[in-house]
Order: sequence, then structure tokens, then C-alpha cells
Amino acid sequence: MEAYLLYSGGKDSSLAALLLKKLNYDLTLITINFGVIDSYKLAQETAKALGFRHKVIKLNREIVEKAADMVISDGYPANAINYIHKTVLETLADKYKVLADGIRRDDRVPKLSYSEIQSLEMRKGIQYISPLMGFGHKTIKELINKFFIIEEIKSGTKLTSDYEVEIREILKEKGYNPKDYFPEHKQTRVLGWKNGEQ
Amino acid sequence: MEAYLLYSGGKDSSLAALLLKKLNYDLTLITINFGVIDSYKLAQETAKALGFRHKVIKLNREIVEKAADMVISDGYPANAINYIHKTVLETLADKYKVLADGIRRDDRVPKLSYSEIQSLEMRKGIQYISPLMGFGHKTIKELINKFFIIEEIKSGTKLTSDYEVEIREILKEKGYNPKDYFPEHKQTRVLGWKNGEQ
Repeated sequence: MEAYLLYSGGKDSSLAALLLKKLNYDLTLITINFGVIDSYKLAQETAKALGFRHKVIKLNREIVEKAADMVISDGYPANAINYIHKTVLETLADKYKVLADGIRRDDRVPKLSYSEIQSLEMRKGIQYISPLMGFGHKTIKELINKFFIIEEIKSGTKLTSDYEVEIREILKEKGYNPKDYFPEHKQTRVLGWKNGEQ
Repeated sequence: MEAYLLYSGGKDSSLAALLLKKLNYDLTLITINFGVIDSYKLAQETAKALGFRHKVIKLNREIVEKAADMVISDGYPANAINYIHKTVLETLADKYKVLADGIRRDDRVPKLSYSEIQSLEMRKGIQYISPLMGFGHKTIKELINKFFIIEEIKSGTKLTSDYEVEIREILKEKGYNPKDYFPEHKQTRVLGWKNGEQ
């Protein structure tokens, strides 16, 4: 069974990849890029370090530009991140039959409602999997420490491969300060497997 | 890491067990029995066939009696099943630090709301895991067919080990016909691993 996992190179999507691998999926990691900045590189490197097949898919810059406008008008990024994630899933669903992401039970965004998931699966005839949806943050933290060597990065200080990076770049181009919209939070980078997992 | 999984011997809780095993949990399967009827036997046999450690925990018969009363007064079993499941989790949470169940994304009952999960974890200082929560029915069906040899059983015709069995028995004792309350549905029994998984 082939599966395609949206992959940022961070700890959550790496753990989601581990779960799918352990379920014997023929797995390809996918990092989305909107052509604003080469933010896919960290995910590409991490996928390589973990031994996963990886693919960068370029989508239309207009998507992230619309998202940046939403951030500016809302004053916070939640709706914009959800908008990007849903648009990405809708687009990939035309090509791939099993789509997965690293969304966790305790995440607020991005997140699809149950009806949105049902609608996506039925309209597109696909399977949508969020392998971490049944796991709380404490459980996930323990699992990550068990399986991965990780390093912390402050958001915005180094190029990560999530949607936020390209939105921040567009905000800067438009003369806005990303710090006014994105709360500072620590992100983690996965460096490799612990205990020779793969 | 130790984990305790509520286990009926059916396909969902068996798949949940597989996932937890693959995440290297030191796993014990738990089947609850309320002393009405020895409905734990199928789960016990299946756990043995799959090579999992298994434990039967006896809880107070009053719990399932209250549930049977709810079925009668509601006219359908949803609230009663939820009541049992929550009571079981609350009780086990006093003893075990990592509790899991086989609840799936597309299940309607039993199911805990996000607030109920948060409350359970915080009040009791535990981790609650539903490994299948991010998987839809189509995905789960594929995974079960991939990993397990299964057999279908019509509900009520053979002893399964879910909460329904003991509720049905009490309904009969009280002179009610379980068929008036429980929709007939096919259940599956897991016979073993496919392809020498374990």
C-alpha cells in the first residue's frame, strides 16, 4: 500500500512517518513549496537522514499569498494555516490515493473537522490518515525521545519546512513584521534515529 | 514504557495492540468483566493466539446493571456503552499510567470528547492513547486484512468480549429482548497473524 505523508522535517511528521513505516506502507514523504523561499531543504535533509523517500511538490504561490493576506487581516495565523493545509490536501488528493499528515490530537491548527475529513475522503475517493491523532502531547514527547535524536530551533531563526516559513517571507516582502503575527515557539529538528531504528 | 490496552478480542483492539507493539510499548491487554457471564474468554484466547500478555479485570456488576437500565430507558445502547467505557477508564486510571483503547476515528460510541480526554489525563496524571483515532474505516479494513486472519461472527450468536455481551445478558435476565435494543451487526474475531507477523 502506497502512502504519501506531508512532511516538514519536524518531530511530529517524523513520528507519523515512523508509524506508517511500521504499518508497512510504501511511504513517500512530501514537502510542499510555494516558490517563495527554498524552505523545503531541511525536510529534504531530514528525510534523507532517516532513510525515507522524499519529494518536493511545488504549488502555486498564490495560495501562500492568500494565506499571508489572511494572517494580516485576522491578526493571527490560525485560519491561514488551516486554509493552506486544506488546499494542499485537496490538491494532492487528485493525484494520491492515501494521504497522511502529522497532525496530533492536541494540535489546534492545522486541523480538519470530522465533516471535512469525510467530505475529502468521499469526494476524492481517497484515504486520509493522521497517525498521531489518538496521541496526546505527553505521549508524543516520550515517543519522539525514544526514537529520534532531536535538536531545538527557535522559530524564524533557521529555515524549517512548515507553511509558516513562506508566509513569514511574504509578510516581510509586504513590509510587515512576522513577529507581530506568529507567536515565538520552539521548533525541533530531527537529526536521526536513536538506537539504530533504521 | 508500559501500556495497558482495553481489549475485546475483536479486530479494532487487535490492530490497536499491533500499533502499540510496533511502538515498542511493554503491552498488557486488559479485558473487563462484570461477573455476569464469562465473556472474557474469547479475548483471552485471541490474546494468546497473538502472543500478547493478557489480564482479565473484574469490575463491579452494578456498573453494567446501571448500563442495562440506561439501554432500557433510552431505547438504544449508545449512552450506556459510553457510560461503561468512561467508568472503566476512570477506574483503571487509578492503577495504570498509560491506558489505551481501540476506538477508531469513525466510531460513534464509545467515544470521549476532547474535554473528557483532557480531564481524564489531567485529573489522573495518566496518558490516554487511542492509536486508531486518526484512521478511517477503509484504512483500518485494509490494515486488518493485511495483518490478521479474521472470521466473522454475527453479534449475539457467539460470545465476544465487548461490553454489549454482559448488557445483553442482564436485559435477558430482566425479561427484555436484547434484539429490541442492539442493532444486529457483524463482529469479527481475530484468529491469528498473517504472514508470520509475530
